[in-house]
Amino acid sequence: MRRRAFLRAGVAVGAASGGLLEAACAPALQSRPAGPVQRPLRLASNENPLGLCPAARQAVMTAIAEGNRYPRQARQALIEAIAAQHGVSADHVMLGTGSTEILQIAVQAMPPEAPVVVADPTYEDVPQYATAAGRRMERVPLRADWSHDIGRMREVVAGAGGAALVFICNPNNPTGTLTPCGDVEAWLREADARTTLVVDEAYFEFAEDPGYRTMQPFALSRPNVVLVRTFSKIHAMAGMRLGYAIAQPATIRRLRTWACNNNGNTLALAAARASLDDAAFHERSLASNRAARRILTECLGELGLEHLPSHTNFVMHRLPGEVADYNARMRERGVLVGRPFPPLTTMSRVSIGLPAEMAEFAQELRDFRARGWA
Amino acid sequence: MRRRAFLRAGVAVGAASGGLLEAACAPALQSRPAGPVQRPLRLASNENPLGLCPAARQAVMTAIAEGNRYPRQARQALIEAIAAQHGVSADHVMLGTGSTEILQIAVQAMPPEAPVVVADPTYEDVPQYATAAGRRMERVPLRADWSHDIGRMREVVAGAGGAALVFICNPNNPTGTLTPCGDVEAWLREADARTTLVVDEAYFEFAEDPGYRTMQPFALSRPNVVLVRTFSKIHAMAGMRLGYAIAQPATIRRLRTWACNNNGNTLALAAARASLDDAAFHERSLASNRAARRILTECLGELGLEHLPSHTNFVMHRLPGEVADYNARMRERGVLVGRPFPPLTTMSRVSIGLPAEMAEFAQELRDFRARGWA
Repeated sequence: MRRRAFLRAGVAVGAASGGLLEAACAPALQSRPAGPVQRPLRLASNENPLGLCPAARQAVMTAIAEGNRYPRQARQALIEAIAAQHGVSADHVMLGTGSTEILQIAVQAMPPEAPVVVADPTYEDVPQYATAAGRRMERVPLRADWSHDIGRMREVVAGAGGAALVFICNPNNPTGTLTPCGDVEAWLREADARTTLVVDEAYFEFAEDPGYRTMQPFALSRPNVVLVRTFSKIHAMAGMRLGYAIAQPATIRRLRTWACNNNGNTLALAAARASLDDAAFHERSLASNRAARRILTECLGELGLEHLPSHTNFVMHRLPGEVADYNARMRERGVLVGRPFPPLTTMSRVSIGLPAEMAEFAQELRDFRARGWA
Repeated sequence: MRRRAFLRAGVAVGAASGGLLEAACAPALQSRPAGPVQRPLRLASNENPLGLCPAARQAVMTAIAEGNRYPRQARQALIEAIAAQHGVSADHVMLGTGSTEILQIAVQAMPPEAPVVVADPTYEDVPQYATAAGRRMERVPLRADWSHDIGRMREVVAGAGGAALVFICNPNNPTGTLTPCGDVEAWLREADARTTLVVDEAYFEFAEDPGYRTMQPFALSRPNVVLVRTFSKIHAMAGMRLGYAIAQPATIRRLRTWACNNNGNTLALAAARASLDDAAFHERSLASNRAARRILTECLGELGLEHLPSHTNFVMHRLPGEVADYNARMRERGVLVGRPFPPLTTMSRVSIGLPAEMAEFAQELRDFRARGWA
């Protein structure tokens, strides 16, 4: 009996006998149910709307029995599975409480006098940790084509004498845009040994551009390059708080001394390990994202609202006015979109939900246009 | 129909229809099953052997559907529940990835030149983070009665000019012993404003000594006192990685800037919130711990092996020889006990398992005695 058929049977049985087991379990195991779109539409945080893959849900339920045990074995098992998937040995991998912990560690592990060099705008966690740690920040505006200004960033680092932490988010958040890999590679190849370069590939799987590729070869060949990945996006595990770094073993050892002990929750570790193997779910994520993103971009085209080319699960588009006003009105409709990302205060970042959710969002946009709000 | 009866019904139904739902769900919801004791006996890490309380298990299953969403709401809900339980407002509370993250933050938030003053031996995470951050460590041996040498610690801090981070673990790990609360309170009341005092009450609920009490009043009245608690012990959630601090709002705000963003996993947050309300489970944890600890201490008494008075879910006891040899032999028997805790290299820290597990452990100890190994 296949799972779906069994779950239907379970529903009937559960109803007959009080429904406790069914009520407890079926929703946990089921993929996201079909049915009416729920409000609020949660399109603010670049979450994968599909939810955990079925194997990951099952893995969580099995792991509950180990929830009282420290996660040492589960950590090692996931590290080894990640290493196998990346074709490296386990000593090239470290886990973080989300990729954000890796970014925090990268900041903390640098000498205090080294500046932190980032694009503007980019993922805000790095500037935030740098500020908390009292580090000097250097923000280099994106170029007109929304790529990182690698040339200018290199000049800033050279001006600081070479000792710097560089953060490259590719594809970039909040713009969704790519920086040419050749430009990044040239820097990684030639960078001063005192420059640490962190390449965040959180949206790696969503970027289907033929010229896009991972910087993993440089993380393996150079001690000052750190690759960062996350389970939050393609694996739909933003709530599970797991990310990882790939780097040379000596680099990993150095970074690990700054990590929080026992990071990685037993249930999340089990879910992540199961999800790593589910290639079919990843294809489904990509297909859903493509279809839903097309609904959005077609609507934006119809309304003449410029949008940046998206290589991610979100789209940055123009507004005729201030994003803060727009967001407030959307919130009143039960639609949550991205917060303002200065200096882009007349652009909105909207995350890609399910196709049915994006169809509803497109209707809201058309209605906003009719009211002169978009 | 009560849950247990329904679960039995579910087993029958599951067997008739393929067993998928039952196989997936019943073990996740059940409390630890009765049955033969499993090897290895896991008595190394001060884990609560009961496992998550039933309400927490149910909360995890419900929360799986939100595993793809960032945990902002779940974090706020737990913070408010913790605040309510402690009778404070939410701005007095911060969450950590285990209490260990709070300890890490406390180290990082101090000026680099301030030494870190700890008992010797005590919980190792603080010295470890201090070493990673390049801080000067001052280890002050426990007194002959196994309490913190508060007088000597105060002298060390005064000698450093007052600016220091002090870590007080009460009850102490790995000894399980208490430091008189009056001595701690006198220091908290009189400490220099530049001295930050972190009081770790991880084992608070297990300490049933009439003279023992929380230092929360000082965390509320003084800006330089931080109370640390965990869900790993009485709540049986070591694998869920959640701890928290209670301190004045301004102190919390300062510490929060050093926290990892979005710490706290969606499933763990839901489980913790459910567990907070389950007073019956906590009573069961205490009763089980008391009964199992008595089996152990009676055996130690019978064998003439001195043990320290335990106010926790572990016991530190003497060995006739080196703990490293003893541990290796125990491991061969499928028994995991605490690692060596220098300078106490002829003592063993054994965690309290279920009563049936401690009865098996006691038999192993008697057999070790017969062989001249204990």
